[in-house]
Amino acid sequence: MTQVNPPPRLLMGPGPVTADPRVLRAMSAQLVGQFDPWMTDTMNETMALYRQVFRTANRQTFLVDGTSRAGIEAALVSLLEPGDRVLVPVFGRFGHLLTEIAERCRAEVHTIEVPWGAVFDPEAIEDAVRRVRPKLVAVVQGDTSTTMCQPLADLGEICRRHDALLYCDATASLGGNEFEMDAWGLDVATAGLQKCLGGPSGSAPISISDRAVGVIDARKHVEAGLRVDDDVDRGERIASNYLDLAQLMDYWGPRRLNHHTEATTMLYGARECARLLVEEGVDAAVARHAGHGRAMLEGVRGLGLEVFGDVAHKMHNVVAVEIPAALGASGGDKVRAALLDDFGIEIGTSFGPLHGRVWRIGTMGHNARRDAVLLTLAALEQVLRGHGVPVTAGGGVGAAREVYAS
Amino acid sequence: MTQVNPPPRLLMGPGPVTADPRVLRAMSAQLVGQFDPWMTDTMNETMALYRQVFRTANRQTFLVDGTSRAGIEAALVSLLEPGDRVLVPVFGRFGHLLTEIAERCRAEVHTIEVPWGAVFDPEAIEDAVRRVRPKLVAVVQGDTSTTMCQPLADLGEICRRHDALLYCDATASLGGNEFEMDAWGLDVATAGLQKCLGGPSGSAPISISDRAVGVIDARKHVEAGLRVDDDVDRGERIASNYLDLAQLMDYWGPRRLNHHTEATTMLYGARECARLLVEEGVDAAVARHAGHGRAMLEGVRGLGLEVFGDVAHKMHNVVAVEIPAALGASGGDKVRAALLDDFGIEIGTSFGPLHGRVWRIGTMGHNARRDAVLLTLAALEQVLRGHGVPVTAGGGVGAAREVYAS
Repeated sequence: MTQVNPPPRLLMGPGPVTADPRVLRAMSAQLVGQFDPWMTDTMNETMALYRQVFRTANRQTFLVDGTSRAGIEAALVSLLEPGDRVLVPVFGRFGHLLTEIAERCRAEVHTIEVPWGAVFDPEAIEDAVRRVRPKLVAVVQGDTSTTMCQPLADLGEICRRHDALLYCDATASLGGNEFEMDAWGLDVATAGLQKCLGGPSGSAPISISDRAVGVIDARKHVEAGLRVDDDVDRGERIASNYLDLAQLMDYWGPRRLNHHTEATTMLYGARECARLLVEEGVDAAVARHAGHGRAMLEGVRGLGLEVFGDVAHKMHNVVAVEIPAALGASGGDKVRAALLDDFGIEIGTSFGPLHGRVWRIGTMGHNARRDAVLLTLAALEQVLRGHGVPVTAGGGVGAAREVYAS
Repeated sequence: MTQVNPPPRLLMGPGPVTADPRVLRAMSAQLVGQFDPWMTDTMNETMALYRQVFRTANRQTFLVDGTSRAGIEAALVSLLEPGDRVLVPVFGRFGHLLTEIAERCRAEVHTIEVPWGAVFDPEAIEDAVRRVRPKLVAVVQGDTSTTMCQPLADLGEICRRHDALLYCDATASLGGNEFEMDAWGLDVATAGLQKCLGGPSGSAPISISDRAVGVIDARKHVEAGLRVDDDVDRGERIASNYLDLAQLMDYWGPRRLNHHTEATTMLYGARECARLLVEEGVDAAVARHAGHGRAMLEGVRGLGLEVFGDVAHKMHNVVAVEIPAALGASGGDKVRAALLDDFGIEIGTSFGPLHGRVWRIGTMGHNARRDAVLLTLAALEQVLRGHGVPVTAGGGVGAAREVYAS
């Protein structure tokens, strides 16, 4: 068996996407001991960089060593005690995931739903908050299953008015869509590297407001063997050790209390993702995603395809494209397979009610680029024609070019 | 801020250790989509490689996407239901960690202890099993906090005799010490990459016997949105979603049921760690660790230093060295700092009862090498002399050379 040798792929699905080569290069750097002064400096730099990415002054801004899902679970298991009421506005698969994780925390979970392809009015959320009186409102910003981006600007104030905490899963949206941790009054937000941040999955940036820090620290139980005299057990112990944010804050903080062994290579990758984003400028990166997302949207329309959902509330970085009826039941998968086999381009399938109904095409991170957009549209045109779908010759690339020209 | 640029370090502590450069190179490979046929083939190859590393035919042998601690928690939270009795033989800090995690699973935790620096007789464990009648015995193989390696060969039979499952945390030992998953009758074992496997922390190999698979699958609850008609909820739901082994088995298995987004770069690294080990031969790698461990042991003795603990039961890959009394209270840390600052060599401090009493020096993974051993001994001699400790000139390197010559 030889060293891993992946085939060349242009990943234009809903994520993971092709990593920025600079991130992979940073990740090939050699390891350093986990309490080496250089290492703790690097951890502090990474915290400072992610404060800029999340747009926050939160001291507690760091990484959870796992995929974005580990970040979500760390937030929920550390905030929610058994029996706590949580409200989850569900507008796609990842809202269901929040529900599922909150249930495993033994919380009392309440949901409200809109049809897939729509988002919530803030008033609908406030009505539910008034009715449920939750300790926590947990909401996804961008749900890739529907491509929708839930407006969050009013939710922090609503939650404060009703004395609820506000958690946001920003995995799919952060870095490619407007996100304002502090200005919007979010208490906890988590993300991943594999979407607009242009890195590999495996590290989950998190930011925690002082208010949420208070709630979490009120449940701090320091591990046997690390305890000193001042460490008294407080509150209901957090059900996970690995994802215990009270311990993780002591590990990333000045106390440097031993917890897990840092996933140093992922730390290097997460730091580089944030460094590149900050170097570009977060606003500039969001504008880049908006531009290339618009080009892809108009491009698929220019091919004669229909777009799913409330486009005014679409994330910049992904579009759901209706699979033409002419393709028949398994035609959607055949088109995806042909794109992958003949052109090395991956686009996404879909979950749940959209399965077999839409493809999801992403333009994010390193792949929010003109050549990636135009190559994808050119290849899609060829594959659709080859499968008997009537398409406008040059219509996709032409429409995208018009967006770029304007 | 520039790209990460770590200082050159030779990591000779209890882990993490310097990564094999081939592992870092494998990790710089570009990403591929998570259900790409090449990717699922690579996942299957990785499973096959880890079966050789763990010495098992267990079909369920795969990776948990987190550090070694995530692997431990995945095993315990998936096996233990609230109220289940678990027996933990504790002979160091990582036994306490198993206790701590099992408590958070709301299990009824029973411990037996031996003093730090010793291991258990199998009879003592069987007596406790007979008394406690646990569902699970959870034991560390190699506890770096004391350097001890618990003999496991008899424990599987003991557990079967009393109808208990046997879990082993092999993080610090696997690949550098004899380990026989099937021959010893272990039910679940977990590890990490950052010790004898020569990679970075962040991926936790796991292997699960058919017997344990039965216990875990009896608690399977498929996620809402992924469920099909045959999926009925069974048993007490596993308290974690991220670390739910029932779901992870469906994700790594032929069903390929979506769970987290694979940490592809860590997968590449984990695959390369195992590939290199299998290429060398697992027995040859264990012999290499035994040889360089012996050279380091005799080397520190040759410098006139004392070694802590029951050396007959020491892991091959780490030695605990008594800090000479002449150095005074903070002298141990000063020596470590001088080794790091002047020679770029890291050795380890200690926890709990051994804090301030011993250094821990590792020879593992890529650093189980002659030059790494001799450089460390040469530098340690200089630093000790500089701090006023009487040492035999050339005694460390000389004693190690004699081991290599024999």
